[in-house]
Amino acid sequence: MNFKMISRIYAMILFIEALFMIPAVGIGLGYGEHTAVISFLVSMAAILAVAGIFALISQNADKTFRAKEGLVCVGTSWILMSLLGCLPFFLSGEIPSYMDALFEIVSGFTTTGASILSDVEALSRCMLYWRSFSHWVGGMGVLVFLLALVPVSGKNQGFTMHLLRAESPGPDVGKLVPKMRQTAMVLYMTYVALTFFDFLFLIFGEMPLFDAVCTAFGTAGTGGFGIKNDSIASYSPYVQNVCTVFMLLFGINFSCFYLLILRQFRAVFKDEELRLYLGVVAVSIILITLNIADLYGSVWESLRYSSFQVASIITTTGFATVNFDLWPSFSKGILMVLMLIGACAGSTGGGIKCARILLLLKGVRRNISQIMHPQKVQVIRVNGKPVDERILSNTNSYLAIYVTIIVVSFLVLGLDNFSMTTNFSATMACFNNIGPGFDAVGPSCNFAAFSPFSKLILIVDMLAGRLEIFPILILLSPKTWKRS
Amino acid sequence: MNFKMISRIYAMILFIEALFMIPAVGIGLGYGEHTAVISFLVSMAAILAVAGIFALISQNADKTFRAKEGLVCVGTSWILMSLLGCLPFFLSGEIPSYMDALFEIVSGFTTTGASILSDVEALSRCMLYWRSFSHWVGGMGVLVFLLALVPVSGKNQGFTMHLLRAESPGPDVGKLVPKMRQTAMVLYMTYVALTFFDFLFLIFGEMPLFDAVCTAFGTAGTGGFGIKNDSIASYSPYVQNVCTVFMLLFGINFSCFYLLILRQFRAVFKDEELRLYLGVVAVSIILITLNIADLYGSVWESLRYSSFQVASIITTTGFATVNFDLWPSFSKGILMVLMLIGACAGSTGGGIKCARILLLLKGVRRNISQIMHPQKVQVIRVNGKPVDERILSNTNSYLAIYVTIIVVSFLVLGLDNFSMTTNFSATMACFNNIGPGFDAVGPSCNFAAFSPFSKLILIVDMLAGRLEIFPILILLSPKTWKRS
Repeated sequence: MNFKMISRIYAMILFIEALFMIPAVGIGLGYGEHTAVISFLVSMAAILAVAGIFALISQNADKTFRAKEGLVCVGTSWILMSLLGCLPFFLSGEIPSYMDALFEIVSGFTTTGASILSDVEALSRCMLYWRSFSHWVGGMGVLVFLLALVPVSGKNQGFTMHLLRAESPGPDVGKLVPKMRQTAMVLYMTYVALTFFDFLFLIFGEMPLFDAVCTAFGTAGTGGFGIKNDSIASYSPYVQNVCTVFMLLFGINFSCFYLLILRQFRAVFKDEELRLYLGVVAVSIILITLNIADLYGSVWESLRYSSFQVASIITTTGFATVNFDLWPSFSKGILMVLMLIGACAGSTGGGIKCARILLLLKGVRRNISQIMHPQKVQVIRVNGKPVDERILSNTNSYLAIYVTIIVVSFLVLGLDNFSMTTNFSATMACFNNIGPGFDAVGPSCNFAAFSPFSKLILIVDMLAGRLEIFPILILLSPKTWKRS
Repeated sequence: MNFKMISRIYAMILFIEALFMIPAVGIGLGYGEHTAVISFLVSMAAILAVAGIFALISQNADKTFRAKEGLVCVGTSWILMSLLGCLPFFLSGEIPSYMDALFEIVSGFTTTGASILSDVEALSRCMLYWRSFSHWVGGMGVLVFLLALVPVSGKNQGFTMHLLRAESPGPDVGKLVPKMRQTAMVLYMTYVALTFFDFLFLIFGEMPLFDAVCTAFGTAGTGGFGIKNDSIASYSPYVQNVCTVFMLLFGINFSCFYLLILRQFRAVFKDEELRLYLGVVAVSIILITLNIADLYGSVWESLRYSSFQVASIITTTGFATVNFDLWPSFSKGILMVLMLIGACAGSTGGGIKCARILLLLKGVRRNISQIMHPQKVQVIRVNGKPVDERILSNTNSYLAIYVTIIVVSFLVLGLDNFSMTTNFSATMACFNNIGPGFDAVGPSCNFAAFSPFSKLILIVDMLAGRLEIFPILILLSPKTWKRS
């Protein structure tokens, strides 16, 4: 294990994290929130001190960097970033328990949006900002940010690639442009531009400036932390619809936007993952609208609620405009399945991802066909291109691990003796980085009542979900820590 | 599609089904249940008439028989057998709705044990016998029975094999002895002997003769239909413990018993699937005993209840000695997971099967290891023998289809607007051939309240679960019915 090189990355990431706190300090000063400002300044000092220690350790680092080290580095970076990033919440006393503060910031960075707060509006403005901003950072990934920022020499392309692969979602991370650093830059520029458009549309709907910034961050990262206790419910239908559209946009594979810029409309239109994603969204909206039609005044109101909730859940954002825990079982069932499916690969959303669902379904179809025609060799194609059997086998294994983690987490949460729906949906909501679940963790409730041990399990779920399992799983394997 | 050959099999199976009703007629006469006896006789006449028509169609059949036809034949045979096998329930008026009668007999043949009856004890004795006997027939499979019975010429080994493979559970059906017919005979003889021992042990505990016969059938088939409203709860602790032991025995791969007869104790002791199965059973019993210790008088009572319930659920039998729906969430969670795991391959139990779980877990371990050492070629071994990559890929696909079916069924049941726990556990209980679930389908409740459409879905679930999906799935594929 190349600890020196990993330490160098820790130092850089923590340095960036401290920088990211500066706007929060500014906001705190603007609103006269002195305790909060002090806690931010103390946190920054602590983070910079730790960064300094890692910088010292990292001197004379050997530049070789393997895939395994990429995974370990990403997993531990996120943990480190969270352990220190929650300090402002804790030091200011606004979240008195360190475990709760940690839960909240992990929920932020992983873009989950599950909260232990029953009264969000009681937080200071700068804390609300930091909470929402953590979604934005976590959405695209702090390492991707680092890679876009820091020039790496040609020799280190492997290093860049291992980190980018480990942090980015999807079964097969492709390069948009030949160089990895440029790919990271294109991704971030698209991300910034889309976030800015979202912000503009929200401002246009007369949303207050601060609310628009935080909501745009929460939407862009497909996070889901709101700054109001009722999430998005009290904003105008226009604002809700803007959120619906932008949540869906942030759930699309970013390479599609890049293709649009390159005017390759045909490729985007024919993209099988995008078609599956939009198809599932459309069918779910129609079914739920019909199912909840009786509950609301008009079909348009039902449509607005159902499309918002479908967009919020499939993109794993987790905003709410209505308490969907009160909807009929059929609609709740659809939402539960959308939790599983998740957004497109290469987006900021979580879940299994549409690309994997596509591969799994195609694998199943081939399997049935092989039983009928055992001698025929059949290749699976996506967007016309044959898929490597190794990616298929990885995807299948991914599903097996995915199910295993859900089962284990569901079991352990059972010790707190909430209902099975609560335990199952809490696991689903955290592991898929959604936020609200059903029953005791429904959209009008929160995660405060779980025991510290259960919270720890959910923290691991959130991190494993955001980083697509392996960077966290590898930390738990004794083999990783053996000297080779 | 070789319809003539398939018709020949239909004719033989229906003939056997009519024969199987003879003991029920005898019992009915003995207890003076005249209406029931007449309905059995009419049913037998109808079944024989249909069998005659198929026999006529099947004349001059071409003997070639492909894998695909094996699957289609098994799937449709089971449906046909159920459509006619439920006639006694319906004609006697003891189950007034045909859909309910069909649900009950499918639940019987598939060894599920889910019932639409709220008062089982109101049924006549001969109906109770037929209900329990359907478990026994379905446990080992009626086609396996047919193959053990009917001599097939050497040319037709392929035919036998395709049928046996399609009906028998597990990822890889091996031959115990070189000839398929002998394998089928060995399986059935083991089955008969074990059932007889179970019966003896029950009689020894002073269980009434009729009760012992029905309970032995229900245990052997890992079915779960009881002849009392409280299932096994009112019998003595001794009887309950006998059931626990025999349920666990019937959940073991029958090839292990064959190896025991051959005195190959070492091979049985080292069998990885058996170790996994017994390990899961032991851990579950311990955890549940500790979790429910407060609810009962002594730790021995808790142990008796927990071991019975664990055995009942993991072997997918579904007997109950206590309303486990009232247990704490943690224990219920464990039972829910046991539903998923299921018994060993090559047993009469359902679920994913321990053999597949073993392969999935080993696949996951290899996957993680491959990420760390991408260049190393790694072969998965079970019991020291390398596993064919094709079986691995099939197992992975099996999981994907399995999850898909659960998701679809869960969604459709949602239309009836029961709780999500009800819908999910009803799907799990039927698809894994267990019987009782939780909440509205808990051990003290039944499936009567579902709509006819939901019942139909659950019927398909039960058949797909018992036949390991493909024989049913293939019937839904348009390709199957195309003329080639």
